[in-house]
Amino acid sequence: MATNETKALGRSTWVYPSGVGILASAAVVGPKEGDGLLKDDYDIIYTDMYAGQDTWEKAERKMLEDAVATAVEKAGLQTSDIPAYLAGDLLNQNITSSFSAKTHQMPFMGVYGACSTSMLSLSLAAALVDGGYTPYAVAGVSSHNATAEKQYRYPTEYGGQKTDTAQWTVTGAGAAVVGRGEGGPLIRYSTIGKVVDRGVKNPFDLGTAMAPAAVDTIQTHFQDTGRMPGDYDLIVTGDLAKVGHPIAADLLKQAGYDLGERFQDCGLMIYSPGHEVFAGGSGCASSAVVTYGHILKQMRQGTWRRVLVIATGALLSPISYQQGESIPCIAHAVALEMSEAAEGSGGLS
Amino acid sequence: MATNETKALGRSTWVYPSGVGILASAAVVGPKEGDGLLKDDYDIIYTDMYAGQDTWEKAERKMLEDAVATAVEKAGLQTSDIPAYLAGDLLNQNITSSFSAKTHQMPFMGVYGACSTSMLSLSLAAALVDGGYTPYAVAGVSSHNATAEKQYRYPTEYGGQKTDTAQWTVTGAGAAVVGRGEGGPLIRYSTIGKVVDRGVKNPFDLGTAMAPAAVDTIQTHFQDTGRMPGDYDLIVTGDLAKVGHPIAADLLKQAGYDLGERFQDCGLMIYSPGHEVFAGGSGCASSAVVTYGHILKQMRQGTWRRVLVIATGALLSPISYQQGESIPCIAHAVALEMSEAAEGSGGLS
Repeated sequence: MATNETKALGRSTWVYPSGVGILASAAVVGPKEGDGLLKDDYDIIYTDMYAGQDTWEKAERKMLEDAVATAVEKAGLQTSDIPAYLAGDLLNQNITSSFSAKTHQMPFMGVYGACSTSMLSLSLAAALVDGGYTPYAVAGVSSHNATAEKQYRYPTEYGGQKTDTAQWTVTGAGAAVVGRGEGGPLIRYSTIGKVVDRGVKNPFDLGTAMAPAAVDTIQTHFQDTGRMPGDYDLIVTGDLAKVGHPIAADLLKQAGYDLGERFQDCGLMIYSPGHEVFAGGSGCASSAVVTYGHILKQMRQGTWRRVLVIATGALLSPISYQQGESIPCIAHAVALEMSEAAEGSGGLS
Repeated sequence: MATNETKALGRSTWVYPSGVGILASAAVVGPKEGDGLLKDDYDIIYTDMYAGQDTWEKAERKMLEDAVATAVEKAGLQTSDIPAYLAGDLLNQNITSSFSAKTHQMPFMGVYGACSTSMLSLSLAAALVDGGYTPYAVAGVSSHNATAEKQYRYPTEYGGQKTDTAQWTVTGAGAAVVGRGEGGPLIRYSTIGKVVDRGVKNPFDLGTAMAPAAVDTIQTHFQDTGRMPGDYDLIVTGDLAKVGHPIAADLLKQAGYDLGERFQDCGLMIYSPGHEVFAGGSGCASSAVVTYGHILKQMRQGTWRRVLVIATGALLSPISYQQGESIPCIAHAVALEMSEAAEGSGGLS
């Protein structure tokens, strides 16, 4: 077993020498997402925004609870086997996550990184498992278009107009069960971001605000690990969408990293061309449903061996915006990798 | 070095075999707290609620930034030496913490557990250091009476009346620098709570709502570690205050744990008898300024050797309350202990 001393690389990358992986994952989505390009990769598709509940907030909670329950079941475990649940969402006071933790009764740690929360919760889950503090941990996040619009912007009934730089909050939830064990995708590295703020103040253009944070974390990841873009089959941001993603690609190219076609964005993968989603998807669920639904499935099927997921978050609030502040952003990256054992067995675990 | 396998005890307690401790800490408070019983134990006392800023939100941020800067300086470090900053607060979207992370430029992880966030951030910081992912981590939290009233309740200008069961949000911030090293108080154990909800719906009586969560975590801590109340010189809850603390004491007694005089509450230690604070103090800063200001100082002076701090959080939001939900609560506990090395040197490090 590696000693503790080997687990920190460079400025802020963690390595998990014990072989921590995603034992199972699940993705739950709403109607528009369930009609999108990745519709075959989700575990549950709700055909209405209420998911059988009487409020949107309860619908979002139901989706997160379902994602957790499904992932835990797919891992062949019960929630009572799992002493650590890390979750976050976009609602004030993280209520989706807290109420899901009430339902599932696992020891609970709330985390918050706006739309970067998916990879933040996954990184902490991996560290707690690799560090030996828990045999298993569940990482989960959610977002819901209607709860987010209501909280951050205008009542949807008002019909406020948006610019083309605005993004569409993904309705859905994702969860991953982390544990030790070969056979599935391993969590090889996490790179924890720091806050980057280039002075953007427009809350209807978060892609532009977040792009430099993604670039900072990607560059740090390469510097810390010694890896280069060619070491990954896919490098995917969480929700930079049509406006932010090309900015990030350009900034990386200026810094000497040409990511080419392998550089994609979850927010551009979810919806169909006919969907009206402005610049593309956003929200905690954007990176989560794509990673936990689509990407891990493709990795198990052998499409990709090494994938770097960079979840980006805009850490503003309506109050900080109203007080004239610019938008602090952050990005956390996780490197996923099919183990050789899994590849040897055909990668179909 | 202990192997990873030894770091999980019972249901949800973590042990840190590498000898992780609080290298330095700082507490910053507002005017009422600075006029209270512990006024000699704070690093900075602001004599007005604005702390030289033009909004209350910026004042809260200034206090957190000051607490972090002071703790890092007292540890003989610079923020550039520290690759992990874990922080949370009560404001929507955790903006106090996020903006402080922009200022201090450490890799940042937002956490949220309402008033339990102090011990949640400290526990994760300890695990990341003990696990070898970072040599140092800073844990920080804040709360501010005026920002909390404005966000959760009524505009303060409205002069809304409160019941005697209500609590007074502490204005202040606390931060701790966690690293390996003998000489100061060690972090021996963390017990991570699960959500406990006994159906209380009154947001003006959070002490009653939170008491059972504190009891659950304290009982779990004793069961997981094999320790008993007599193993601690002080067992202190974060903010149960006048109403909740006796309920917790009674429930523990019914469960066979008579904590006696060693059972205290941070929310009852901060203010002077003449202060009008209803049932007592609350907020993330309640446990933080008492622990990082008063308790660690007393431990270094030899007053107490072993202290168990249980920070309690009410995980509601105004929306969950308005939708008729009861209040989910949680508590996280950290066992602090003066090392024998520190005792041998007189404990005055």
